[in-house]
Amino acid sequence: MSNIILGGMMLKAVFFDIDDTLFDTSGFAKLARKAALNMMIDAGLPLSSTEAYKLLREIIGQKGSNYDKHFNVLTKTVFGEEKPLLISLGMINYHNVKFALLRPFPETISTLINIKAKGYQLGVISNGITIKQWEKLIRLGIYPFFDEVVTSDEVGFEKPHGRIFEVALNRMGCSAENSVMIGNKFTEDIMGAVNAGMSAILVNSKLTTEEEKRIEEEKLDVKVISNISELENIL
Amino acid sequence: MSNIILGGMMLKAVFFDIDDTLFDTSGFAKLARKAALNMMIDAGLPLSSTEAYKLLREIIGQKGSNYDKHFNVLTKTVFGEEKPLLISLGMINYHNVKFALLRPFPETISTLINIKAKGYQLGVISNGITIKQWEKLIRLGIYPFFDEVVTSDEVGFEKPHGRIFEVALNRMGCSAENSVMIGNKFTEDIMGAVNAGMSAILVNSKLTTEEEKRIEEEKLDVKVISNISELENIL
Repeated sequence: MSNIILGGMMLKAVFFDIDDTLFDTSGFAKLARKAALNMMIDAGLPLSSTEAYKLLREIIGQKGSNYDKHFNVLTKTVFGEEKPLLISLGMINYHNVKFALLRPFPETISTLINIKAKGYQLGVISNGITIKQWEKLIRLGIYPFFDEVVTSDEVGFEKPHGRIFEVALNRMGCSAENSVMIGNKFTEDIMGAVNAGMSAILVNSKLTTEEEKRIEEEKLDVKVISNISELENIL
Repeated sequence: MSNIILGGMMLKAVFFDIDDTLFDTSGFAKLARKAALNMMIDAGLPLSSTEAYKLLREIIGQKGSNYDKHFNVLTKTVFGEEKPLLISLGMINYHNVKFALLRPFPETISTLINIKAKGYQLGVISNGITIKQWEKLIRLGIYPFFDEVVTSDEVGFEKPHGRIFEVALNRMGCSAENSVMIGNKFTEDIMGAVNAGMSAILVNSKLTTEEEKRIEEEKLDVKVISNISELENIL
Protein backbone atom coordinates (compact mmCIF):
# COMPACT_ATOMS: atom_id res chain seq x y z
CA MET A 1 0.00 0.00 0.00
CA SER A 2 2.72 2.42 0.94
CA ASN A 3 4.17 2.41 -2.59
CA ILE A 4 1.14 3.92 -4.29
CA ILE A 5 2.13 7.30 -5.65
CA LEU A 6 -0.10 10.30 -5.04
CA GLY A 7 -1.20 12.23 -8.07
CA GLY A 8 1.87 12.48 -10.20
CA MET A 9 1.96 16.23 -10.27
CA MET A 10 2.01 18.83 -7.53
CA LEU A 11 -1.17 18.82 -5.43
CA LYS A 12 -2.65 22.23 -4.84
CA ALA A 13 -5.70 21.63 -2.68
CA VAL A 14 -6.29 19.32 0.26
CA PHE A 15 -9.89 18.51 1.22
CA PHE A 16 -10.82 17.01 4.58
CA ASP A 17 -13.78 15.14 5.92
CA ILE A 18 -14.69 16.41 9.44
CA ASP A 19 -16.15 13.66 11.64
CA ASP A 20 -13.63 11.07 12.84
CA THR A 21 -11.07 12.63 10.50
CA LEU A 22 -10.33 15.97 12.22
CA PHE A 23 -11.73 15.01 15.63
CA ASP A 24 -13.03 11.99 17.50
CA THR A 25 -16.76 12.44 16.80
CA SER A 26 -17.72 8.86 17.62
CA GLY A 27 -15.80 8.71 20.90
CA PHE A 28 -17.24 12.02 22.15
CA ALA A 29 -20.77 11.16 21.09
CA LYS A 30 -20.62 7.83 22.93
CA LEU A 31 -19.41 9.45 26.17
CA ALA A 32 -21.97 12.23 25.89
CA ARG A 33 -24.83 9.79 25.25
CA LYS A 34 -23.86 7.66 28.24
CA ALA A 35 -23.62 10.72 30.50
CA ALA A 36 -27.03 11.91 29.29
CA LEU A 37 -28.64 8.51 29.91
CA ASN A 38 -27.17 8.33 33.42
CA MET A 39 -28.81 11.67 34.25
CA MET A 40 -32.11 10.39 32.88
CA ILE A 41 -31.79 7.19 34.93
CA ASP A 42 -31.09 9.25 38.08
CA ALA A 43 -34.29 11.20 37.35
CA GLY A 44 -36.46 8.11 36.96
CA LEU A 45 -35.78 6.31 33.66
CA PRO A 46 -36.34 2.69 34.78
CA LEU A 47 -33.48 1.06 32.85
CA SER A 48 -29.89 0.06 33.61
CA SER A 49 -27.13 2.06 31.88
CA THR A 50 -26.51 -0.86 29.57
CA GLU A 51 -30.17 -1.31 28.65
CA ALA A 52 -30.62 2.42 28.10
CA TYR A 53 -27.55 2.69 25.85
CA LYS A 54 -28.62 -0.35 23.85
CA LEU A 55 -32.10 1.13 23.32
CA LEU A 56 -30.68 4.54 22.36
CA ARG A 57 -28.36 2.92 19.80
CA GLU A 58 -31.30 1.08 18.28
CA ILE A 59 -33.23 4.35 18.01
CA ILE A 60 -30.23 6.13 16.45
CA GLY A 61 -29.91 3.20 14.04
CA GLN A 62 -33.54 3.59 13.00
CA LYS A 63 -33.77 7.37 12.90
CA GLY A 64 -30.23 8.33 11.84
CA SER A 65 -27.73 10.37 13.84
CA ASN A 66 -28.95 13.74 12.50
CA TYR A 67 -32.49 13.20 13.86
CA ASP A 68 -32.90 15.49 16.87
CA LYS A 69 -35.55 13.67 18.92
CA HIS A 70 -33.83 10.43 19.98
CA PHE A 71 -34.65 11.05 23.64
CA ASN A 72 -38.30 11.78 22.83
CA VAL A 73 -38.56 8.38 21.13
CA LEU A 74 -36.68 6.73 23.99
CA THR A 75 -39.06 7.99 26.71
CA LYS A 76 -42.07 7.19 24.52
CA THR A 77 -40.77 3.65 24.04
CA VAL A 78 -40.22 3.14 27.75
CA PHE A 79 -43.23 4.97 29.25
CA GLY A 80 -45.74 4.95 26.37
CA GLU A 81 -45.60 8.77 26.36
CA GLU A 82 -42.95 11.47 26.07
CA LYS A 83 -41.43 12.70 29.35
CA PRO A 84 -40.32 16.32 28.90
CA LEU A 85 -38.21 16.47 32.08
CA LEU A 86 -36.21 13.38 31.08
CA ILE A 87 -35.90 14.52 27.45
CA SER A 88 -34.62 17.96 28.48
CA LEU A 89 -32.23 16.48 31.06
CA GLY A 90 -30.88 14.13 28.39
CA MET A 91 -30.45 16.86 25.79
CA ILE A 92 -28.81 19.35 28.16
CA ASN A 93 -26.34 16.81 29.49
CA TYR A 94 -25.60 15.40 26.04
CA HIS A 95 -24.69 18.87 24.77
CA ASN A 96 -22.83 19.91 27.91
CA VAL A 97 -20.61 16.82 27.82
CA LYS A 98 -20.10 16.97 24.06
CA PHE A 99 -19.04 20.62 24.13
CA ALA A 100 -16.90 20.12 27.24
CA LEU A 101 -14.96 17.32 25.52
CA LEU A 102 -14.87 18.74 22.00
CA ARG A 103 -11.32 19.15 20.71
CA PRO A 104 -9.39 18.19 17.59
CA PHE A 105 -7.20 15.08 17.49
CA PRO A 106 -3.87 15.98 19.16
CA GLU A 107 -2.14 16.19 15.76
CA THR A 108 -4.88 18.00 13.82
CA ILE A 109 -3.89 21.63 14.35
CA SER A 110 -0.12 21.21 13.87
CA THR A 111 -0.82 19.22 10.71
CA LEU A 112 -3.15 21.91 9.33
CA ILE A 113 -0.56 24.60 10.11
CA ASN A 114 2.14 22.59 8.35
CA ILE A 115 0.09 21.90 5.21
CA LYS A 116 -1.10 25.49 5.01
CA ALA A 117 2.51 26.71 5.37
CA LYS A 118 3.47 24.57 2.39
CA GLY A 119 1.12 26.62 0.24
CA TYR A 120 -1.84 24.27 -0.14
CA GLN A 121 -5.40 25.51 -0.22
CA LEU A 122 -7.48 23.73 2.39
CA GLY A 123 -11.10 22.70 2.14
CA VAL A 124 -13.77 20.61 3.81
CA ILE A 125 -16.15 18.20 2.08
CA SER A 126 -18.58 16.86 4.64
CA ASN A 127 -21.85 14.94 4.75
CA GLY A 128 -24.06 16.75 7.25
CA ILE A 129 -26.18 19.77 8.11
CA THR A 130 -24.40 22.99 7.09
CA ILE A 131 -24.81 24.93 10.33
CA LYS A 132 -23.95 21.87 12.49
CA GLN A 133 -20.76 21.20 10.52
CA TRP A 134 -19.72 24.85 10.72
CA GLU A 135 -20.45 24.75 14.44
CA LYS A 136 -17.95 21.89 14.80
CA LEU A 137 -15.26 23.78 12.88
CA ILE A 138 -15.87 26.87 15.01
CA ARG A 139 -15.98 25.04 18.34
CA LEU A 140 -12.84 23.09 17.36
CA GLY A 141 -11.17 26.44 16.67
CA ILE A 142 -10.03 25.39 13.18
CA TYR A 143 -12.41 27.10 10.77
CA PRO A 144 -9.91 29.83 9.75
CA PHE A 145 -7.73 27.17 8.10
CA PHE A 146 -10.32 26.37 5.46
CA ASP A 147 -10.75 28.31 2.22
CA GLU A 148 -13.93 26.42 1.29
CA VAL A 149 -16.40 24.36 3.31
CA VAL A 150 -18.87 22.29 1.30
CA THR A 151 -21.62 20.21 2.90
CA SER A 152 -24.03 17.66 1.47
CA ASP A 153 -26.81 19.77 2.97
CA GLU A 154 -26.04 22.74 0.72
CA VAL A 155 -25.13 20.71 -2.41
CA GLY A 156 -28.08 18.33 -2.17
CA PHE A 157 -25.90 15.24 -2.69
CA GLU A 158 -23.87 13.24 -0.16
CA LYS A 159 -20.42 11.76 -0.60
CA PRO A 160 -19.65 9.54 -2.50
CA HIS A 161 -21.83 11.32 -5.11
CA GLY A 162 -19.63 13.07 -7.68
CA ARG A 163 -21.61 16.30 -7.48
CA ILE A 164 -20.34 17.28 -4.01
CA PHE A 165 -16.70 16.84 -5.08
CA GLU A 166 -17.36 18.77 -8.28
CA VAL A 167 -18.89 21.70 -6.36
CA ALA A 168 -15.95 21.72 -3.94
CA LEU A 169 -13.37 21.75 -6.76
CA ASN A 170 -15.22 24.49 -8.62
CA ARG A 171 -15.48 26.69 -5.57
CA MET A 172 -11.82 26.17 -4.80
CA GLY A 173 -10.87 26.84 -8.43
CA CYS A 174 -8.81 23.68 -8.48
CA SER A 175 -8.67 20.70 -10.86
CA ALA A 176 -9.37 17.19 -9.58
CA GLU A 177 -5.84 16.06 -10.52
CA ASN A 178 -4.36 18.73 -8.30
CA SER A 179 -6.47 17.78 -5.30
CA VAL A 180 -6.45 15.15 -2.59
CA MET A 181 -9.24 14.07 -0.24
CA ILE A 182 -8.53 12.97 3.34
CA GLY A 183 -11.19 10.95 5.16
CA ASN A 184 -11.97 7.92 7.29
CA LYS A 185 -14.65 6.27 5.14
CA PHE A 186 -13.62 4.10 2.21
CA THR A 187 -16.80 4.40 0.17
CA GLU A 188 -17.79 8.00 0.91
CA ASP A 189 -14.41 9.71 1.10
CA ILE A 190 -11.95 7.52 -0.78
CA MET A 191 -14.00 6.04 -3.64
CA GLY A 192 -16.02 9.24 -3.93
CA ALA A 193 -12.85 11.29 -4.42
CA VAL A 194 -11.15 8.76 -6.71
CA ASN A 195 -14.22 8.54 -8.94
CA ALA A 196 -14.18 12.35 -9.12
CA GLY A 197 -10.60 12.17 -10.39
CA MET A 198 -8.86 13.13 -7.15
CA SER A 199 -6.25 11.32 -5.09
CA ALA A 200 -7.35 10.05 -1.70
CA ILE A 201 -5.84 9.25 1.67
CA LEU A 202 -7.61 7.06 4.21
CA VAL A 203 -6.99 7.91 7.88
CA ASN A 204 -8.22 6.44 11.20
CA SER A 205 -9.56 3.38 9.46
CA LYS A 206 -8.30 0.10 8.00
CA LEU A 207 -8.87 -1.30 4.52
CA THR A 208 -10.63 -4.64 4.18
CA THR A 209 -8.87 -7.28 2.11
CA GLU A 210 -11.42 -6.67 -0.61
CA GLU A 211 -10.75 -2.94 -0.61
CA GLU A 212 -6.98 -3.50 -0.72
CA LYS A 213 -7.43 -5.83 -3.68
CA ARG A 214 -9.63 -3.34 -5.48
CA ILE A 215 -7.08 -0.55 -5.07
CA GLU A 216 -4.30 -2.77 -6.40
CA GLU A 217 -6.24 -4.19 -9.33
CA GLU A 218 -7.70 -0.87 -10.45
CA LYS A 219 -4.43 0.97 -9.66
CA LEU A 220 -6.38 3.55 -7.65
CA ASP A 221 -4.55 6.63 -6.40
CA VAL A 222 -5.10 5.85 -2.71
CA LYS A 223 -2.82 5.94 0.31
CA VAL A 224 -3.51 4.80 3.87
CA ILE A 225 -2.08 6.51 6.94
CA SER A 226 -2.71 5.69 10.57
CA ASN A 227 -2.45 9.26 11.85
CA ILE A 228 -3.24 12.62 10.31
CA SER A 229 0.27 13.87 11.19
CA GLU A 230 1.71 11.57 8.50
CA LEU A 231 0.29 13.98 5.95
CA GLU A 232 3.25 16.25 6.63
CA ASN A 233 5.57 13.65 5.02
CA ILE A 234 3.28 12.94 2.07
CA LEU A 235 2.22 16.40 0.92
CA MET B 1 -54.39 48.34 44.81
CA SER B 2 -52.89 46.90 47.95
CA ASN B 3 -56.28 46.45 49.58
CA ILE B 4 -57.59 43.89 47.12
CA ILE B 5 -58.07 40.62 48.93
CA LEU B 6 -56.84 37.39 47.44
CA GLY B 7 -59.35 34.60 47.09
CA GLY B 8 -61.21 34.65 50.35
CA MET B 9 -60.37 31.10 51.29
CA MET B 10 -57.08 29.33 51.75
CA LEU B 11 -55.09 29.06 48.50
CA LYS B 12 -53.69 25.61 47.82
CA ALA B 13 -51.80 25.90 44.56
CA VAL B 14 -49.50 28.60 43.20
CA PHE B 15 -48.81 28.70 39.46
CA PHE B 16 -45.94 30.64 37.94
CA ASP B 17 -45.14 31.97 34.53
CA ILE B 18 -41.43 31.37 33.69
CA ASP B 19 -40.00 34.10 31.44
CA ASP B 20 -39.43 37.45 33.18
CA THR B 21 -41.29 36.09 36.22
CA LEU B 22 -38.78 33.54 37.61
CA PHE B 23 -35.75 34.86 35.75
CA ASP B 24 -34.68 37.82 33.64
CA THR B 25 -35.29 36.30 30.19
CA SER B 26 -35.40 39.60 28.34
CA GLY B 27 -32.24 40.99 29.91
CA PHE B 28 -30.23 37.82 29.22
CA ALA B 29 -31.54 37.51 25.68
CA LYS B 30 -30.58 41.10 24.90
CA LEU B 31 -27.03 40.65 26.20
CA ALA B 32 -26.66 37.33 24.39
CA ARG B 33 -27.94 38.75 21.10
CA LYS B 34 -25.55 41.72 21.29
CA ALA B 35 -22.61 39.43 22.07
CA ALA B 36 -23.55 37.18 19.15
CA LEU B 37 -23.83 40.12 16.75
CA ASN B 38 -20.44 41.48 17.83
CA MET B 39 -18.84 38.12 16.99
CA MET B 40 -20.56 38.19 13.60
CA ILE B 41 -19.35 41.75 12.98
CA ASP B 42 -15.78 40.74 13.89
CA ALA B 43 -16.09 37.94 11.33
CA GLY B 44 -17.26 40.20 8.51
CA LEU B 45 -20.88 41.29 9.01
CA PRO B 46 -20.70 44.82 7.51
CA LEU B 47 -22.91 46.61 10.05
CA SER B 48 -22.35 48.61 13.22
CA SER B 49 -23.47 47.02 16.51
CA THR B 50 -26.42 49.38 16.60
CA GLU B 51 -27.50 48.67 13.02
CA ALA B 52 -27.13 44.92 13.51
CA TYR B 53 -29.17 44.90 16.73
CA LYS B 54 -31.89 47.03 15.13
CA LEU B 55 -32.10 44.64 12.15
CA LEU B 56 -32.16 41.57 14.42
CA ARG B 57 -35.00 43.07 16.46
CA GLU B 58 -36.98 43.70 13.30
CA ILE B 59 -36.46 40.09 12.24
CA ILE B 60 -37.48 38.79 15.69
CA GLY B 61 -40.53 41.06 15.50
CA GLN B 62 -41.52 39.53 12.15
CA LYS B 63 -40.67 35.89 12.84
CA GLY B 64 -41.41 35.62 16.58
CA SER B 65 -38.89 34.81 19.33
CA ASN B 66 -39.38 31.02 19.05
CA TYR B 67 -38.27 30.97 15.39
CA ASP B 68 -34.79 29.41 15.29
CA LYS B 69 -33.33 30.96 12.14
CA HIS B 70 -33.06 34.67 12.95
CA PHE B 71 -29.38 34.75 12.02
CA ASN B 72 -30.07 32.97 8.71
CA VAL B 73 -32.55 35.69 7.80
CA LEU B 74 -30.15 38.39 8.99
CA THR B 75 -27.26 37.25 6.78
CA LYS B 76 -29.63 36.74 3.85
CA THR B 77 -30.96 40.27 4.31
CA VAL B 78 -27.47 41.76 4.43
CA PHE B 79 -25.63 39.65 1.83
CA GLY B 80 -28.45 38.37 -0.37
CA GLU B 81 -27.53 34.81 0.65
CA GLU B 82 -27.10 32.87 3.91
CA LYS B 83 -23.58 32.86 5.38
CA PRO B 84 -23.09 29.63 7.36
CA LEU B 85 -19.94 30.77 9.19
CA LEU B 86 -21.64 33.94 10.46
CA ILE B 87 -24.86 32.09 11.32
CA SER B 88 -22.99 29.42 13.30
CA LEU B 89 -20.81 32.01 15.06
CA GLY B 90 -23.94 33.91 16.01
CA MET B 91 -25.80 30.86 17.29
CA ILE B 92 -22.85 29.48 19.28
CA ASN B 93 -22.13 32.80 20.97
CA TYR B 94 -25.81 33.50 21.62
CA HIS B 95 -26.18 30.16 23.42
CA ASN B 96 -22.82 30.39 25.22
CA VAL B 97 -23.63 33.81 26.64
CA LYS B 98 -27.23 32.93 27.47
CA PHE B 99 -26.24 29.79 29.37
CA ALA B 100 -23.31 31.52 31.07
CA LEU B 101 -25.63 34.21 32.42
CA LEU B 102 -28.69 32.08 33.12
CA ARG B 103 -29.78 32.27 36.74
CA PRO B 104 -33.01 32.94 38.63
CA PHE B 105 -33.84 36.38 40.01
CA PRO B 106 -31.94 36.75 43.33
CA GLU B 107 -35.18 36.21 45.30
CA THR B 108 -36.66 33.37 43.24
CA ILE B 109 -35.22 30.34 45.04
CA SER B 110 -35.75 31.56 48.62
CA THR B 111 -39.32 32.51 47.69
CA LEU B 112 -40.03 29.09 46.19
CA ILE B 113 -38.59 27.39 49.30
CA ASN B 114 -40.73 29.56 51.54
CA ILE B 115 -43.98 28.95 49.63
CA LYS B 116 -43.30 25.23 49.36
CA ALA B 117 -42.60 25.07 53.12
CA LYS B 118 -46.00 26.65 53.75
CA GLY B 119 -47.60 23.62 52.12
CA TYR B 120 -48.62 24.99 48.73
CA GLN B 121 -48.43 22.92 45.60
CA LEU B 122 -46.37 24.66 42.94
CA GLY B 123 -46.91 24.65 39.21
CA VAL B 124 -45.84 26.33 36.01
CA ILE B 125 -48.14 27.61 33.26
CA SER B 126 -46.02 28.84 30.39
CA ASN B 127 -46.43 29.85 26.75
CA GLY B 128 -43.59 28.18 24.87
CA ILE B 129 -42.06 25.01 23.47
CA THR B 130 -42.24 22.20 26.05
CA ILE B 131 -38.61 21.03 25.87
CA LYS B 132 -37.27 24.61 25.80
CA GLN B 133 -39.29 25.59 28.88
CA TRP B 134 -38.19 22.47 30.77
CA GLU B 135 -34.63 23.26 29.73
CA LYS B 136 -34.94 26.65 31.43
CA LEU B 137 -36.30 25.11 34.65
CA ILE B 138 -33.48 22.54 34.65
CA ARG B 139 -30.70 25.02 33.84
CA LEU B 140 -32.09 27.41 36.48
CA GLY B 141 -31.91 24.53 38.98
CA ILE B 142 -35.52 24.99 40.07
CA TYR B 143 -37.48 22.20 38.36
CA PRO B 144 -37.77 20.03 41.53
CA PHE B 145 -39.99 22.71 43.12
CA PHE B 146 -42.79 22.17 40.61
CA ASP B 147 -45.45 19.51 40.91
CA GLU B 148 -46.86 20.25 37.45
CA VAL B 149 -45.44 22.04 34.41
CA VAL B 150 -47.93 22.90 31.67
CA THR B 151 -46.93 24.52 28.39
CA SER B 152 -48.97 25.98 25.55
CA ASP B 153 -47.04 23.65 23.23
CA GLU B 154 -48.49 20.55 24.86
CA VAL B 155 -51.98 21.95 25.50
CA GLY B 156 -52.38 23.48 22.06
CA PHE B 157 -53.61 26.81 23.46
CA GLU B 158 -51.63 29.79 24.74
CA LYS B 159 -52.37 31.95 27.76
CA PRO B 160 -54.74 33.79 28.10
CA HIS B 161 -56.87 30.95 26.62
CA GLY B 162 -58.88 29.27 29.37
CA ARG B 163 -57.95 25.76 28.23
CA ILE B 164 -54.33 25.99 29.42
CA PHE B 165 -55.41 27.07 32.92
CA GLU B 166 -58.07 24.35 33.01
CA VAL B 167 -55.50 21.66 32.09
CA ALA B 168 -53.10 22.93 34.75
CA LEU B 169 -55.80 22.92 37.45
CA ASN B 170 -56.96 19.42 36.46
CA ARG B 171 -53.46 18.00 36.53
CA MET B 172 -52.80 19.61 39.91
CA GLY B 173 -56.13 18.36 41.23
CA CYS B 174 -56.95 21.85 42.46
CA SER B 175 -59.95 24.11 42.07
CA ALA B 176 -59.58 27.54 40.46
CA GLU B 177 -60.75 29.26 43.67
CA ASN B 178 -57.92 27.66 45.58
CA SER B 179 -55.26 28.71 43.08
CA VAL B 180 -53.27 31.80 42.25
CA MET B 181 -51.31 32.69 39.12
CA ILE B 182 -48.09 34.74 39.28
CA GLY B 183 -46.85 36.38 36.09
CA ASN B 184 -45.54 39.54 34.43
CA LYS B 185 -48.07 39.90 31.61
CA PHE B 186 -51.41 41.50 32.29
CA THR B 187 -53.37 39.95 29.44
CA GLU B 188 -51.77 36.49 29.30
CA ASP B 189 -51.13 35.80 32.97
CA ILE B 190 -53.45 38.03 34.96
CA MET B 191 -56.62 38.24 32.84
CA GLY B 192 -56.14 34.65 31.67
CA ALA B 193 -56.07 33.41 35.27
CA VAL B 194 -58.89 35.69 36.47
CA ASN B 195 -61.14 34.59 33.61
CA ALA B 196 -60.41 30.99 34.58
CA GLY B 197 -61.64 31.76 38.13
CA MET B 198 -58.24 32.04 39.78
CA SER B 199 -56.64 34.88 41.72
CA ALA B 200 -53.68 36.59 40.08
CA ILE B 201 -50.58 38.52 41.12
CA LEU B 202 -48.67 40.72 38.68
CA VAL B 203 -44.92 40.92 39.22
CA ASN B 204 -42.06 42.78 37.42
CA SER B 205 -44.52 44.91 35.53
CA LYS B 206 -46.71 47.95 36.04
CA LEU B 207 -50.43 48.32 35.44
CA THR B 208 -51.58 50.92 32.94
CA THR B 209 -54.22 53.38 34.16
CA GLU B 210 -56.74 51.54 32.03
CA GLU B 211 -55.82 48.18 33.58
CA GLU B 212 -56.03 49.63 37.10
CA LYS B 213 -59.47 51.02 36.31
CA ARG B 214 -60.64 47.70 34.92
CA ILE B 215 -59.52 45.83 38.04
CA GLU B 216 -61.32 48.30 40.29
CA GLU B 217 -64.53 48.49 38.28
CA GLU B 218 -64.82 44.74 37.74
CA LYS B 219 -63.58 44.00 41.29
CA LEU B 220 -61.01 41.57 39.91
CA ASP B 221 -59.04 39.42 42.32
CA VAL B 222 -55.67 40.88 41.33
CA LYS B 223 -52.67 42.05 43.34
CA VAL B 224 -49.51 43.79 42.15
CA ILE B 225 -46.09 43.26 43.70
CA SER B 226 -42.78 44.72 42.62
CA ASN B 227 -40.66 41.75 43.63
CA ILE B 228 -41.35 38.02 43.80
CA SER B 229 -40.13 37.93 47.43
CA GLU B 230 -43.29 39.84 48.48
CA LEU B 231 -45.20 36.60 47.87
CA GLU B 232 -43.94 35.39 51.25
CA ASN B 233 -46.10 38.01 52.96
CA ILE B 234 -49.16 37.44 50.81
CA LEU B 235 -49.45 33.66 50.70
